[in-house]
Amino acid sequence: MTERVLSVLAAFSAERPELTLTEISRRAGLPLTTTHRIVGELAAWGALERQAGCYRIGLRLWEVGSLAPRGLGLRETAMPFLEDLYEVTRQNVQLAVLDGTDAVYVERISGRGAVNVITRVGGRLPLHATGVGLVLLAHAGADLQEQVLAGPLRRYTAKTICVPAQLRRVLADVRREGVAITDGMIELIALSIAAPVRDARGDVTAALSVVVPSEGTDARAYVPAVRAAARAISRALGAPDRPRSAVGGGIIIQPPPVQESHDAAL
Amino acid sequence: MTERVLSVLAAFSAERPELTLTEISRRAGLPLTTTHRIVGELAAWGALERQAGCYRIGLRLWEVGSLAPRGLGLRETAMPFLEDLYEVTRQNVQLAVLDGTDAVYVERISGRGAVNVITRVGGRLPLHATGVGLVLLAHAGADLQEQVLAGPLRRYTAKTICVPAQLRRVLADVRREGVAITDGMIELIALSIAAPVRDARGDVTAALSVVVPSEGTDARAYVPAVRAAARAISRALGAPDRPRSAVGGGIIIQPPPVQESHDAAL
Repeated sequence: MTERVLSVLAAFSAERPELTLTEISRRAGLPLTTTHRIVGELAAWGALERQAGCYRIGLRLWEVGSLAPRGLGLRETAMPFLEDLYEVTRQNVQLAVLDGTDAVYVERISGRGAVNVITRVGGRLPLHATGVGLVLLAHAGADLQEQVLAGPLRRYTAKTICVPAQLRRVLADVRREGVAITDGMIELIALSIAAPVRDARGDVTAALSVVVPSEGTDARAYVPAVRAAARAISRALGAPDRPRSAVGGGIIIQPPPVQESHDAAL
Repeated sequence: MTERVLSVLAAFSAERPELTLTEISRRAGLPLTTTHRIVGELAAWGALERQAGCYRIGLRLWEVGSLAPRGLGLRETAMPFLEDLYEVTRQNVQLAVLDGTDAVYVERISGRGAVNVITRVGGRLPLHATGVGLVLLAHAGADLQEQVLAGPLRRYTAKTICVPAQLRRVLADVRREGVAITDGMIELIALSIAAPVRDARGDVTAALSVVVPSEGTDARAYVPAVRAAARAISRALGAPDRPRSAVGGGIIIQPPPVQESHDAAL
């Protein structure tokens, strides 16, 4: 029964944030009468809200969700430093955490003049195709790395890394440099500079990035600011000092030409 | 059964974001075996996360909650303007919506040098005691106003308005001025300048505020910036132009001395 309640909630998505009862029933795979009853109970509690014959996620569920330590808790600690980074760069500043084989974005600050990006708070993108994703994957357990390397590695642009062997090298580079610079991997117009955020155990718990226009940007100029902000958030989270932590200037990740993206490249 | 699932989720709060199974069982008022089963199903889905024998709200529930239009949807539209306001003031910038007889905070940006405030994103405070709350209440339906006026009106400081007749006058002032300036009502150290945000139907859908130190602040100096940001967000939400909207300079709300706070003051 818990499953049925959750399937009703899972019927909603960023693409479909408002649904009719019939749509919820179909998307949740539940009979209309069951759906009607569950939706009624969820609405009475405030987990759903009704407007003009449609249902949407309610403020009460947002409130409960905001208690997730890896959501708003992390965000609250990080926010002043994200602000600092935003003030210096006036571009997009993002904070993401690992969930399955995706990076989930828990915060984004965007200037009105910043390059448009496809991410949104609460949204997710695969690890291999984004700067924050590569940082999270580079520091993840070997099992998860092998799972991602086993593919499929979806191509978003000609610059997305879709060759396992190359992805493996990139992950080693990111670990060594302590920063990931990705150019046009998910959208050709956007370049990302990303660095790891560590928790009190010293584990990488999140990744921070600045996303700037790909054209005419000196990516390495952003590296010190991104690295400093990531270290500041880590310190605020109680991370131990890492005197020997990676301090490379940042290698701009160069994907191979598209035609090499077959197994022969291994 | 939906009710039981929701009671498990409602067991978590900002004060108690991590709970053991026994604590969840007690707070939800459910037998341990039932709690164990529901918690297991919620954890399998990602609505709860387990760490070191404790449960906390999971990232998946945060993701679903982030779909609430009055939560992150509103926030995404408002964010660039909140950023602008923050850059001008370097203090606390807050955005709140109405829920029951509370103001629920959907966003807060705080400078590192800003006055400390007790609010947090996802938190709630009563309408009569905060700047954003008075703005929301001033524009709310008559039924809700009467419900709040009927009390009880909890006292937070000597400056909290706890006299119904005075609250009624304040609400009229706020409607006329188009802005609420509250000094020390919830914490003596903080002063708030708040203005309404309207949606496409022209209804007040949120309230925006800047919270600054009470001491040594010229509150009225903040009024134009707060008003401009609130209008800009309203416009982004599709609100109709309001050429005749209130443009008072803002009256600093003066509560009566504490000893008047009994019915004789009516």
